[in-house]
Amino acid sequence: MDRAARDNRQWNGWGDKDRSLALSADGAAFITETLGEANPLAVATLEEVLAKVPASRLEESELYTTDAEVRLRHARGQSLPDWLAMKSGEFNLFPDAVAFPRSSEEIRALMDAAKLNEWQLIPYGGGTSVVGHITPCESDKPVLTISMSKMNRLLALDRVSQLATFGAGVKGPFLESQLQAQGYTLGHFPQSFELSTLGGWVVTRSSGQQSLHYGRIESLFAGGEIETLEGKLDMTTLPASSAGPDWRHLVLGSEGHLGILTEAKVRVSRVPEQEFFGVAFMPNWQQGIACAREVIQQGLPLSMLRLSNSIETKTQLFLSASQSQRHWLGKLLSLKGVGDDKCMLVYGITGDKRDNRQRYKRLKGIISQFKGVNTGQSLGKKWEHKRFAFPYLRETLWQMGYAIDTLETATNWSNIEPLTDKIEQSLKGGLEEFGTQVHVFSHLSHLYSDGASIYTTYLFPVAKTYEQTYQQWQKLKSTTSKLIVENHGTISHQHGVGGDHAAYLATEKGERVVESLQDYFNGFDPKGQLNPGKLFKASNTQDEAQS
Amino acid sequence: MDRAARDNRQWNGWGDKDRSLALSADGAAFITETLGEANPLAVATLEEVLAKVPASRLEESELYTTDAEVRLRHARGQSLPDWLAMKSGEFNLFPDAVAFPRSSEEIRALMDAAKLNEWQLIPYGGGTSVVGHITPCESDKPVLTISMSKMNRLLALDRVSQLATFGAGVKGPFLESQLQAQGYTLGHFPQSFELSTLGGWVVTRSSGQQSLHYGRIESLFAGGEIETLEGKLDMTTLPASSAGPDWRHLVLGSEGHLGILTEAKVRVSRVPEQEFFGVAFMPNWQQGIACAREVIQQGLPLSMLRLSNSIETKTQLFLSASQSQRHWLGKLLSLKGVGDDKCMLVYGITGDKRDNRQRYKRLKGIISQFKGVNTGQSLGKKWEHKRFAFPYLRETLWQMGYAIDTLETATNWSNIEPLTDKIEQSLKGGLEEFGTQVHVFSHLSHLYSDGASIYTTYLFPVAKTYEQTYQQWQKLKSTTSKLIVENHGTISHQHGVGGDHAAYLATEKGERVVESLQDYFNGFDPKGQLNPGKLFKASNTQDEAQS
Repeated sequence: MDRAARDNRQWNGWGDKDRSLALSADGAAFITETLGEANPLAVATLEEVLAKVPASRLEESELYTTDAEVRLRHARGQSLPDWLAMKSGEFNLFPDAVAFPRSSEEIRALMDAAKLNEWQLIPYGGGTSVVGHITPCESDKPVLTISMSKMNRLLALDRVSQLATFGAGVKGPFLESQLQAQGYTLGHFPQSFELSTLGGWVVTRSSGQQSLHYGRIESLFAGGEIETLEGKLDMTTLPASSAGPDWRHLVLGSEGHLGILTEAKVRVSRVPEQEFFGVAFMPNWQQGIACAREVIQQGLPLSMLRLSNSIETKTQLFLSASQSQRHWLGKLLSLKGVGDDKCMLVYGITGDKRDNRQRYKRLKGIISQFKGVNTGQSLGKKWEHKRFAFPYLRETLWQMGYAIDTLETATNWSNIEPLTDKIEQSLKGGLEEFGTQVHVFSHLSHLYSDGASIYTTYLFPVAKTYEQTYQQWQKLKSTTSKLIVENHGTISHQHGVGGDHAAYLATEKGERVVESLQDYFNGFDPKGQLNPGKLFKASNTQDEAQS
Repeated sequence: MDRAARDNRQWNGWGDKDRSLALSADGAAFITETLGEANPLAVATLEEVLAKVPASRLEESELYTTDAEVRLRHARGQSLPDWLAMKSGEFNLFPDAVAFPRSSEEIRALMDAAKLNEWQLIPYGGGTSVVGHITPCESDKPVLTISMSKMNRLLALDRVSQLATFGAGVKGPFLESQLQAQGYTLGHFPQSFELSTLGGWVVTRSSGQQSLHYGRIESLFAGGEIETLEGKLDMTTLPASSAGPDWRHLVLGSEGHLGILTEAKVRVSRVPEQEFFGVAFMPNWQQGIACAREVIQQGLPLSMLRLSNSIETKTQLFLSASQSQRHWLGKLLSLKGVGDDKCMLVYGITGDKRDNRQRYKRLKGIISQFKGVNTGQSLGKKWEHKRFAFPYLRETLWQMGYAIDTLETATNWSNIEPLTDKIEQSLKGGLEEFGTQVHVFSHLSHLYSDGASIYTTYLFPVAKTYEQTYQQWQKLKSTTSKLIVENHGTISHQHGVGGDHAAYLATEKGERVVESLQDYFNGFDPKGQLNPGKLFKASNTQDEAQS
């Protein structure tokens, strides 16, 4: 089998198999006190699962591998249903083969073979989807997953235009190291940065933690090449155009339905002279929101602003600070009038030193105006150090018997408080019928003049069986997703649609618009070979949103 | 007939009939010396043209008017072919009726009647299109033009989310006065600002002079309502979303093919504390480009930056400054090392005073670094005062016997100099076979990290007849448009596609992409009733780009 496939990745969870993020005794106690004791479910071994991988429906070929372990390692992403499948060993569906093309030409050969033989194609970037983008659907046609991992090089850098061309399979760290060696940065840092890929960011409309400064992937993505079933399509890079609809915006969010993005051109910037992160505490959620909104609507150019509500703040402090640290911080803050309802505000400032000084001064002024207390950079450094590590907590919690998942949306400022309340209430009381506690907390990140994203995390003890755990998750997910789109929120601000969100798209965009977009993609894929069941509802899930 | 139709507008040219922009004796002499004496063509009177308006093919109705003068006044935009038609009186094509709906319900009634009777529909905003957006096409079906002029009110203002909802027919000044009375601004100031409308800006992807600060209409437009032939479609306002392709980007640039945008929600900002414009002179075009690029790529947040090449600079100074002003300016600049190749750099700074001071300081530093000379705000005030008045020069020049037109594109920085050269050479020598001089000059405006727009103006003496003048224009237009799209420029950065640019779209976006977009719109308009012949090639112009 291909060496690249047997990398250091955890086969049934997040990230590198040698990395973990431990909980302090205090943190573990906090979770147990909040949710009650839990009983971990038994986890299948790799050998057990390998024994269940069915024979491939594809013949051996130089184009791809049908090795069982490789297929297993590319069968699932990182959604909670994916985790339940991986931990239980009940994958059920596997791709029939996985290809690791090294060039557009090899992708062309794969697409041609797929077209001829009516295979289904799933593009695979970093495998980090939390909404089922890469999970095969039941199908009577063979399924080929195309891993982009070998197309990861900086192919061109136009320093004058600040445009870089990459193989679309490049992962965050290798993208940044290639660019930064030349004095440039893309500045796209989603939490999945270490594992996810440029192509994945584009086709799922990703957003990085510092999008406030660098922009979402929509503004960073300038063009590139896409291999469709019909042949290659080029997107000219233009700084702006009024020549009709912007086709890039149909590639962005296409989730595999147009074909495979092979090369992406991105707008890069010079590595900033200085960057730092800091933390302030606001007296409560309302004051925190008002402060964050004021910062943004004044147009103060920060690179990040993230406001945790008081339960998230409390949880974070339990998970990451010692008892004495919590004690002294609480003491200090309460002296300054910030008490138990405190909300943590993490900010990032990026740019040249003189500008940064002035920005920081203005920021501190606004924080004071809203009765917050700035604690400076020490906690900010801590946040920065762990910014990509938090997902490893999933494993730690899993081993304690807790499942963790997130829901995220975006809405206008006037709807931020009501929608956050509704989401939290929906999750918190969502498992009452099972007598199961759910611990729920939220933060705002990705702030815009007209609104912000709401990112809600929820934890609950696993049930007695995998099946029951899945049912409980599905109840939380479907009830709350429906609530979000019915209350003027997007079904996703940064994770995309995949399979898990497809049923809610019509409420958000309108039936007719979704139908028209589906027709559009069908024009390039009349037999529905390209990542079926993602973005649009598969026929057997028509009524899920109504259930 | 409807009073609103008999407004103060010039019936056969730009803007208000009582306004004009005179040329100084010096300015007139400069033009005559550059291009040779010219003989103005005879201009048809309103009465002459009215006599030629054919009977309407539509019966009288309360839904619209068939008044000849109203139809005449809505038959053409402001492209050079439109001017030649209006000045010669050879309109040839008129809409059969013009409607002035006051509500979405009235638009609904019009759309339903149009669907039932297979009328063609042309949406009419401010009538300022310079690419033929509102010119009727030859058709055996009646043509109804829908003027949005009565739907011009601020319908809602969400101060918390900084979102304003307007009737899409609102013109720039009324939009700003309604907003500024509440402390907000949209900040969208295209040169046509006084006449063009919000709906027009959206469906043609307009860009304002201060887009550097406020953004293009793509980022200001948050959603709204559109009446299609099938019924109303709503666009939810969301600050951002990763839920599949962004449908707003199919409305933006749809140029009437989806239906009529009735209400538009826009992202507004607080009226800035301070705004000023200033002028510097760079020693030459290359240094000017390098300076502008440095400003943008450093991320210095100005609200405008516009760099004229040396011919434009010279022309502007002849047209707008007295001999003694030119003398003293030249003296001053040459003392500081800026000579005959000088290039004017107009900048705008917008924000709070303290920030502005810092930005201005940095800007002056960069200007010096590239050997430019800042002259401060006095010339900037002059520019600001005339920023929307320049189009009135068309009439002044027309009366002297000169035709004037513009071409605009955008491209990446590494292509800015070569493409500007190519465009200018193509226009300059384009009428040699007729022995006709063409005066050509350019500026960069709308700057982006990866490129800029190039805006080229060209003047030439009219020929002996309207027909010959049209042929000469068409030669310049088609040769240069072809050259632009074949050399990595967009066919339009801010004017849209309309009829005049439709033939070049496929070279820019690719045949397959254009075909797919046309299919998309046909899905909403199977009989081709919505603004036919615009955006996409009409069947009888298939090969214009190849000619």
